[in-house]
Amino acid sequence: MRDDERLPQPVTTDIDLVTLLHALGDPVRMTLLLSYADGAEHSCDPRGLGLEHLHKSTVSHHMRVLREAGVTTTRVAGRNRFVSLRRSDLDTRFPGLLDALLAAATAPAR
Amino acid sequence: MRDDERLPQPVTTDIDLVTLLHALGDPVRMTLLLSYADGAEHSCDPRGLGLEHLHKSTVSHHMRVLREAGVTTTRVAGRNRFVSLRRSDLDTRFPGLLDALLAAATAPAR
Repeated sequence: MRDDERLPQPVTTDIDLVTLLHALGDPVRMTLLLSYADGAEHSCDPRGLGLEHLHKSTVSHHMRVLREAGVTTTRVAGRNRFVSLRRSDLDTRFPGLLDALLAAATAPAR
Repeated sequence: MRDDERLPQPVTTDIDLVTLLHALGDPVRMTLLLSYADGAEHSCDPRGLGLEHLHKSTVSHHMRVLREAGVTTTRVAGRNRFVSLRRSDLDTRFPGLLDALLAAATAPAR
């Protein structure tokens, strides 16, 4: 039995700060980050991510940007795909940054 | 005698995280951030910012994005403009974020 496959993603040492910030500098992708912050795997169904107002292809695009920036990893299990945050990898690459971003994203309302 | 003028900028409480990340998710603007990280005021001359390969209008555009995102403040003194980092405002709005970003930007090379 082999492991589930993963979609392409940068290795930890190749995660680039500017690419990461560009990925998170979008309101939909920030919404996704906050969903993934629980550390669990999430299906790609927009309804489960609070993004039911967007087309599935739009959500898929945003997920790809996050994955290619090194923010998330996507596990392929048969016809299903499960996305989760690369917390450990991000903490290794940029210590303290993810926590600071998540704290900022949940800072008191303006 | 009145104070020097400042170009328009968001008040601290209106600094938006996604807008800030979008502003910093660009290699030229990240270069500018690192120049401004010394806390000093900088003229808008691209040559003094390591951006002599770019047209002055391009650099001005990037400076405007940073200012409108709340990253920098621009003081107008006669015909001169001086840009500096809003470190205190950013630390107030998003505690720890700027330090984490600057640490990440100067992390060991990949």
